[in-house]
Formats: sequence, C-alpha cells, structure tokens
Amino acid sequence: MATRLDEDLEARMRELGRAAREAQRRLAVAPRAAKDAALRRAAAELRTRCHHLIAVNAEDLAEAEARGLGKAVLDRLMLDEKRVEAIARSLEEIAELPDPVGTELARWMRPNGLDIARVRVPLGVIGIVYESRPNVTADAGGLCLKAGNAAILRGGSESFRSSRAILACLHAGLEAAGLPLAAIQAVPTTDRAAVGHLLKMNDFVDVIVPRGGKSLIERVYAESRIPVLAHLEGNCHTYLHESADLDMAVAVTLNAKLRRTGICGATETLLCDRAAAPRLLPPVLDALIRRGCEIRGCPETLALEPRAVPASEQDWSTEYLDAILAVKVVAGLEEAIAHIERYGSHHTEAIIARDRNAAETFLARVDSAIVLHNASTQFADGGEFGMGAEIGIATGRLHARGPVGVEQLTTFKYVVRGNGQCRPG
Amino acid sequence: MATRLDEDLEARMRELGRAAREAQRRLAVAPRAAKDAALRRAAAELRTRCHHLIAVNAEDLAEAEARGLGKAVLDRLMLDEKRVEAIARSLEEIAELPDPVGTELARWMRPNGLDIARVRVPLGVIGIVYESRPNVTADAGGLCLKAGNAAILRGGSESFRSSRAILACLHAGLEAAGLPLAAIQAVPTTDRAAVGHLLKMNDFVDVIVPRGGKSLIERVYAESRIPVLAHLEGNCHTYLHESADLDMAVAVTLNAKLRRTGICGATETLLCDRAAAPRLLPPVLDALIRRGCEIRGCPETLALEPRAVPASEQDWSTEYLDAILAVKVVAGLEEAIAHIERYGSHHTEAIIARDRNAAETFLARVDSAIVLHNASTQFADGGEFGMGAEIGIATGRLHARGPVGVEQLTTFKYVVRGNGQCRPG
Repeated sequence: MATRLDEDLEARMRELGRAAREAQRRLAVAPRAAKDAALRRAAAELRTRCHHLIAVNAEDLAEAEARGLGKAVLDRLMLDEKRVEAIARSLEEIAELPDPVGTELARWMRPNGLDIARVRVPLGVIGIVYESRPNVTADAGGLCLKAGNAAILRGGSESFRSSRAILACLHAGLEAAGLPLAAIQAVPTTDRAAVGHLLKMNDFVDVIVPRGGKSLIERVYAESRIPVLAHLEGNCHTYLHESADLDMAVAVTLNAKLRRTGICGATETLLCDRAAAPRLLPPVLDALIRRGCEIRGCPETLALEPRAVPASEQDWSTEYLDAILAVKVVAGLEEAIAHIERYGSHHTEAIIARDRNAAETFLARVDSAIVLHNASTQFADGGEFGMGAEIGIATGRLHARGPVGVEQLTTFKYVVRGNGQCRPG
Repeated sequence: MATRLDEDLEARMRELGRAAREAQRRLAVAPRAAKDAALRRAAAELRTRCHHLIAVNAEDLAEAEARGLGKAVLDRLMLDEKRVEAIARSLEEIAELPDPVGTELARWMRPNGLDIARVRVPLGVIGIVYESRPNVTADAGGLCLKAGNAAILRGGSESFRSSRAILACLHAGLEAAGLPLAAIQAVPTTDRAAVGHLLKMNDFVDVIVPRGGKSLIERVYAESRIPVLAHLEGNCHTYLHESADLDMAVAVTLNAKLRRTGICGATETLLCDRAAAPRLLPPVLDALIRRGCEIRGCPETLALEPRAVPASEQDWSTEYLDAILAVKVVAGLEEAIAHIERYGSHHTEAIIARDRNAAETFLARVDSAIVLHNASTQFADGGEFGMGAEIGIATGRLHARGPVGVEQLTTFKYVVRGNGQCRPG
C-alpha cells in the first residue's frame, strides 16, 4: 500500500511537472506587459486579502507552536500587516525591473554574412524548495514569472496554509493577465517524499533552488539529478591587513559581524595581520564584546584580549549565524589567503587595507563569489548590488555565482540570420 | 584484492585531483604571456616530434586493428603529418585568442559609493572524458589552459600512447613557460573504473566535459556528481516553410544533411509545409537521393517521392549520423514547432523561409541552443561562430549553451571596492 501511495505521489508530481513545462512554453513568449500586470494584480490581491492572510497564518502559527517549534521559526513564519505590505511591495518592485527576456547580450556579423545574436531566454522550469518563510512563495514565484520561467514551489509544512493563501493571490494575478495558472504551482502535499520526486524530474525541471538551513541544502545537493543554484553555507571572512585604518576596521568589523548575525553574508572569522594585531585587535574586539559578541581566538588573540575563549580547529570552519566570532592572527596576506582557501565556503570575503596593492592581490586571488575591499561582508545581497530582488546567493561556479536575481534566472540561445548560407568544406 | 586495487585507484585519482586544484590556483593568476608561450612551445614540440608521434600512433593503430575496431574508429585515431600540423596550428590559434580571464563583464557604482565589477575568472578544474581522437588531448588541454583552468584528461584506451606523446609536448610547453605540469594531467590508466572516481570527485573537479558517442555521454550524465557540459545528441531539424525559395531549399538542405553526416549539427529530420510540399519536396528529395541519401518519409512524403521508404515513429527521434533523412509533411509553423519540441534534442534547428514574420516566430519559439533562418544547421560550430576553437557543444540550459569555447570555460566573481561602507539597517 505504501508503494501504491508513493506511485500515486510520483504520478501527481510528474503531472505538476508536465503542466509547468507547458505553461513555461507560453510564458517564454509572454509580453512584458502581461507578466507585470500579473505581478501588480497579485500585489493588489495581497493587500485586499491582508486580514484573511493574517487569519490563515494564525492557524499555521498555532500549529507550529503546538508542535513545539522554536521562537526563531515562529518569527520567520509570522505575518502581520507590515509583512504582507512588504510582500506586496516586493512584487511591485519585481514588476518595475526591466524584462531580461529577449535582450541581445551580443550580436556580430560573420565574414560570410551570417548575423549571429546571443539572446536571453528564460531558464525554463524552476523548482524551489524552502523552509518556513511564507514570503518566499511570493518572491520566488514573482521572480520566476518576471524572467518567463514556470515555478514549482515546495514550501515548509509549517507555512502550508499561509503559502497557499499567498499563492491564491498570485493565481488571481495570472488569471487577470491571461497567463496560465500553472506558471506558479505549489506541491499540494507536505509529504517529504514529494521533494525526492521533484529532484529527479529532470525532464520537466531545469533548475532547483533550495532555500533554508544546511541540512535542507545538503539533502538537495545529495539527491538532485537537476542542476542546483544554492550556497551550502556562508563562512565569510573579514581580513584586517596591517595597513588597515583603525576606525574603519572597528566600524566595518562590527557591521560585518553584528548588523544581522543570521544572514549568510555575516562574517564568521576575523583574520588579522600579526604586525598590526596589537594596534587593531584590542579596540576591534573590545567593541564587539561590548555589544555582546563572544570571541573565540587563537593563542595570540587570547594574549591580546583576555575575555576571548580559545578557538578549536572546528571554529575555523563553523558558520555560527550568531553573535560569535572566530579570530586568528596571521603572518600576512599569503597566510590569510591560504586560510580562506582552506576553511572558507567561497561565499564572501573582505579585506580592510589602506595598501591598494595588498587589496588588489586579495581581490584577485581569493576565489569567492564576492570579494570586497574596505566594505562590510553584509553587502552580499542582490538588492544591495542593485540587482533588485534575489532568490538566493549561489556559491557554485557554473551559471550564476553570487546573488541570483531576475537576470540569473535566464539563459540564452543563439539566433542566426542568413540568406541561404551553406557551410563550405 | 579487487577492493584493495580499487582503493589504490581511487587514491591515485584523488591525488591527481589535488594536484590539479593546486595547479589551478597558480594558473588562475598566470599572465597571458606565460599561457600563450606554453601553447606556442607545445605547438613547436609537436612539429619537432612529428615522426615520433606518428610512430607511437602506429602502435595504437596496430593494437586497435588487432582488437577488430571498425574503420571509422581507426580513421579517427590515425595521425599523419597533416594531422599533427593541424593539431600544432590549433594550439597556436588558441594562443592568438584574447585572454578571457580578468575581463570586466560589467561595472557599476552604487549610490553609497560601492564600486561593483563582475570579472571573468577561470572555471577551475575541468575533467574531460573522450574517445578515440587523439587531437582532443591537445585541443581540450590547450583551451583549458588558455582560460586558466587545470585539465584532467581521460582519453580512450585506443589512443593511449598517442595521447601520452601529445601530452608530453604540452608538458614541454608548460615547463618552458614556468607553469605547473599538473595544469594538464592525463589519467595514467585505461581502467574504466577511473572514470567513475573522476565523476565523483566534486571537491577537486568543477565541470565534466564528455566528448564521444551517446553511450559515453549517457554514462557520464548518469554517474556524475559534477556539473556536465555536453550534448547527448544532435537530432537537428530543417523546416521548409511554405514561403521558402526553392533553390535555397535545395542547396541548404543538401548542405545541412550531406556536407558531413557524422557531425552533431547535421540535419536528421526535414519538415515541410503541406501547402508547398508538391513544389519543394520533389526537387529537394531528388537532389538528396541522387547524392546517395536514403529518405524515410511520412505517407504524404511517400506519395510525392516513390523512392522514399516509410518512416516509423522511431525515425523522428533518431540521430542517424549517416546519409539518411527522415521527412515529414506538416500543416504549418505551429505543427513544425510542436514536432521539434516533441522529438528534438534542443541542439540546432533551421527554418527556410522568405516570410520574415514566420521566421521570427520560429526563431523566438523554438527552444534550442542554436536557431537559424535561411542557413545550414552545419554552422553549429564554435569556429564558424567566430569563437575560435571549441571543446564541444552544450545543450543543457545552464552556464554554456551552444558552442563551448574559451569564454564558456570561465565563470565570474564580483569584485567590490569601497571606502569603509557599512550596510545600514
């Protein structure tokens, strides 16, 4: 009987995939006006149904509380008027972005008269697997739609009712704009096996974007037969070069670590040149400690800051997502780069330095999606980059690296125009 | 004992991967002059050692003949003076290409003064799994080197000696240029299990590029834990719209099918509008048949060309790589697009039409890596596109679509320059 049920689930998932593929063919050639109208109408529906959304969300919250889920999960799950308005506004902002589809990325003429253009087209069908934040339903669905992609959304079971209510608003938008409702579909069950089927439907799904904790991302990487755009973790580094300005070192390190500790661009390890450690570390660490940050230091750090506790080998590869910072004194630029290469996650790293040569060496040699000079690692964000909303940050090397926004949700094709050319030889 | 041997092989493969990763860090920052010097010196070595290469190749050929391998395999395997010169020249042409590494793809300033650049960087370590052509050793090694990547080459067992001798020339070039020899390595065994290990080394290898027959590509897709750039097959279509010029239809179809039947851009199915079938098909098919092409037609095709044989359902999805053409009469543009969507492989498709609107609809709606108007599908080639040498053609949607040349063997990172910016909020 279990097998029978699982076969049913697989068949239902494949039906979802087939519908998404069909819808995507229509979306691929949908005019900008229709896509933007759908987004704006969905935003209007969210505002109209705001109190309904909050009521539905209260049911999710009550169940989550009864299941004993933690305060952080409950906070991510919660919708109030302000959050519903933010979701609606975000859809309108996506509508305001330029339409990437059809853009000519390059165009050139060959000596034989062939006119070759590289033209942006949608990626196709995108599967999004995420956890408790119900706003991802609107953000991911909206970004996919804008880039002409169909989305298959699989949200967390905690937010099942809230996500379904948000999806209804998106569908109202699609319907009003004359676009297929299958452009944005949700997996209609909280059965975890559904994700397993989704990750294997490489005939219907072109890319998987997982959003959530490390265990979710690990599962997706391990099981997916479909390319994945994601980051497993953001073990980000800030490196204080011996030439660093003290005030800047204090301000940027504080921001990089403590502005928000739970985001992937938060700095998790601070490296500091030995030559400048007595000048830089005591004031930087004092400022952090006074704001409630725990310091786990190497022996040299401990000698400079007695309130620090000893770091273990494990600390260098830990993404705390909390008010904890690992601190290591290094011999110089080479050791800093080597440390990041060994322990980092290729997400975001910053150097604080007055010395431009040292900074350019760091920027050239550190192999991360984002490298910064004299700025906070917390800028690792599509919005801060001016790319509009993002669906996540990717640390893989292929296709999209760094923030994944509307442009990164497209691919391209070559359009060749001739007048009867035949290939010689 | 088998287990012990396999563990040894895995350890040796991982050692190869580790060395490649280390070499790649150095290559990533190697100046253009060093990379080009290595390529030119390797070309010179190939010419100097030409007679040695031919002698070594003769041993491969003798063994392949003794193993009873077919004429086509022997031809692909064979090296003579002309082919060695072509391999050398190809390395020099790669040296002449611009260096993609370090190119700024975009650069913009944010209102807060952050200066953001998207800069091309190498992809990393590339595993290339290929069959009997020994020239792939030089082409793939050379292209990877030019883009700052390390290559791990796994050629066919038939060309083992020839590939090793070509690799020695590449190593002479690397050595003369002061670059690490591990920039281009070959798997030192013909054991098929080595490929299995390579495909799972996702900590050391960033991309796999398989080149060869369908069964090789299928194996790589099925086993790889690493992203793959490839095409499984090129079931390419030429579509004769009712507005097609007759002379152009004859010339382009002949070229698309018969110029070379064994390349992936060769047309395998001809579609023709019903309204123009009596005008177009008889002369087009007659020209093909007179040049030795077999025609497998739908019933309407058979009625117009009695020498054709009936096509089966299977024919619409077959990549013949031979002088055989499947021919189908369709109601019009919509049916042509639907047929390609159902049976095609998203590689290359062409429309022959005088009607520009019909052509633009076809170009917009057919979802293939390359779409052409009034030109032969045999132009599906990096060289013909003006991209220089190519390592293959990709039909996946992510990262590289169409010809994979030097540029497609790179990725990018974001380089952000500030003056102490902290993220607000």
